[in-house]
Amino acid sequence: MTKINQLSTYLSENNLDAAFITTPDNVFYVSGFRSNPHERLLGVVIFKDAEPLMICPKMEVPDAKEAGWAFDVVGHQDTDQPWQLLKEAIVAKGITINQLAIEKSHMTVERLEALQELFPQASFARLDDQLNSMRVIKDERELDILRKAAEFADYAIEVGVSEIAEGKTELEILTAIELALKKKGIAHMSFDTMVLSGPKTASPHGKPGDRKIQKGDFVLFDLGVIYEGYCSDITRTVSFGEPSDAQKDVYETVKKAEQAAVDAVKPGVRAMDLDKIARDVITQAGYGEFFTHRLGHGLGISVHEFPSVTGNNEMALIEGMVFTIEPGIYDPSITGVRIEDDVVVTKDGVEVLTKYPKELVIIPSA
Amino acid sequence: MTKINQLSTYLSENNLDAAFITTPDNVFYVSGFRSNPHERLLGVVIFKDAEPLMICPKMEVPDAKEAGWAFDVVGHQDTDQPWQLLKEAIVAKGITINQLAIEKSHMTVERLEALQELFPQASFARLDDQLNSMRVIKDERELDILRKAAEFADYAIEVGVSEIAEGKTELEILTAIELALKKKGIAHMSFDTMVLSGPKTASPHGKPGDRKIQKGDFVLFDLGVIYEGYCSDITRTVSFGEPSDAQKDVYETVKKAEQAAVDAVKPGVRAMDLDKIARDVITQAGYGEFFTHRLGHGLGISVHEFPSVTGNNEMALIEGMVFTIEPGIYDPSITGVRIEDDVVVTKDGVEVLTKYPKELVIIPSA
Repeated sequence: MTKINQLSTYLSENNLDAAFITTPDNVFYVSGFRSNPHERLLGVVIFKDAEPLMICPKMEVPDAKEAGWAFDVVGHQDTDQPWQLLKEAIVAKGITINQLAIEKSHMTVERLEALQELFPQASFARLDDQLNSMRVIKDERELDILRKAAEFADYAIEVGVSEIAEGKTELEILTAIELALKKKGIAHMSFDTMVLSGPKTASPHGKPGDRKIQKGDFVLFDLGVIYEGYCSDITRTVSFGEPSDAQKDVYETVKKAEQAAVDAVKPGVRAMDLDKIARDVITQAGYGEFFTHRLGHGLGISVHEFPSVTGNNEMALIEGMVFTIEPGIYDPSITGVRIEDDVVVTKDGVEVLTKYPKELVIIPSA
Repeated sequence: MTKINQLSTYLSENNLDAAFITTPDNVFYVSGFRSNPHERLLGVVIFKDAEPLMICPKMEVPDAKEAGWAFDVVGHQDTDQPWQLLKEAIVAKGITINQLAIEKSHMTVERLEALQELFPQASFARLDDQLNSMRVIKDERELDILRKAAEFADYAIEVGVSEIAEGKTELEILTAIELALKKKGIAHMSFDTMVLSGPKTASPHGKPGDRKIQKGDFVLFDLGVIYEGYCSDITRTVSFGEPSDAQKDVYETVKKAEQAAVDAVKPGVRAMDLDKIARDVITQAGYGEFFTHRLGHGLGISVHEFPSVTGNNEMALIEGMVFTIEPGIYDPSITGVRIEDDVVVTKDGVEVLTKYPKELVIIPSA
């Protein structure tokens, strides 16, 4: 069933006449058309029992069709009144809007007022939770894209590790990674790439800078790419030169915690259970106070979406959910280490999308 | 008068009890505190005749104070009810909210509903136009920051020009520019940096790629930085090797058009007049059909803000406005050229912020 059919069914079941979707991420989700028209009106209207329609700037109509939109498109120019065109297209279908579902956590008050003027008799329902509950489960097509996005993340780590050398700065390594990805057609990272070295690894929100890599450093990479509208997110930490016993112990503890959480993923397990499993390993090794953030977050069209993998999220995992597992220890007296994978909940377990090895990589320091 | 005093005066004059500002750009504008709390509540409440207050996540309270916020701050944790805390802080001041001004073009319906629940008797007015009309005029402090942002843009062009060499790719040059800026502490560009060469210069929205620079190419740079929350935006086009007469003619025409518009800037001139002055130069030289976009756009906390410098904007220029002037000719049979400066409307003329020379730079091709 397509996303649009799913939403039509939802509208029927809830006595709603139509849904009006206007956030670029959700327009992309239901239509395959990715656009950011800024203030200009872009939206998809889905009906209980009629074909959907799209409204977008006229110059983007061909792009929408090329992206696979097979239904009506209302194109508008800057000299048009787009809201009026929208109403006319709906009226032309013989549809009356009494109950309209909107994205209340995104739609602006200004746009609500425009809709109230167009449909004075209408009341407005909340569509957000329905969209969130759909987006949290990825279908096969989405999983294929996420697999590929994760491959690029693995490749980025490979490049980063190969760039590590005495005296190179964090920023130089970061730049080499992003250049290599751009050459592969990746135009945007899913967030600011992080390359941190030495004591800076112990700061979970540190910023890459001019620090030069030196013998004995751990180097932490946290990065991801946007591929066909979907995000990946990986963290690996490697050693430049032979690590101390204390560094090794931190590393092996994080690795064990991460693997324990990954191994526990399957339908029915709660998000909070995963957090506890990883946290217990770290606490029992004596580093509990240095694991200062949640275990992970959902991943998809947004780099942070549902489900949140926190110690108080009772949501049970369902097949098709995709999220990160990323425990860390940030002990300023030893080092910081974080290891992060992207995982999918499968029918009876887990598929790990990011495949860069998790054995501690030791780069000879000459 | 501070921005907050200006807004208090506006509230008095319009019989509004308070303004609630929640978009991160406008919170920064009125408070100096830059934060992006995502779904968490961040806002500044300004009153007709009481000191303002801020609400933000508890862990950011110290940052807000460090950024210079000298008034009350309500910090909230994830376990708190932030809207309730907001109401209590307002009630504690003895203030009743009957008329509340909000940013209707940004505030979400969900947040409006939260406010309606807190203040059932209140009606909601539009604050957007007042904020826009304030932001369009930059004060001395803002101008100092914009001057510095423009200096970094000049520097970026210098780096880019110095990197041009036979066989180097657009992406390699782009990467060198961004690395040089990162080393100077610039963490973010104001938009995706553009380095286009040869025939690609004729595409105003082309994407930098693996094309190698070769003799006879024009190379077009369009870029800007974010410095202390404010944006710059510059375009320069240079020649790699001796240009043809046709290339020179296109260049000189754009340069003349750009300079004519810059020279015409002063209070009272309309935005549309500037567009016409530049367009006339290009049309008279026979390239009218190849100048396919507006002359420029306002610049400040956003890289595109008011005023829009288009052929139909009748707004008269006022001292303190900052915008780009960026005519271009995109003739696929010859080359593309665009030249862009950032300018300020002064008391009786113009100050040009971007200073990289506009004489055609010819880089020897070996």
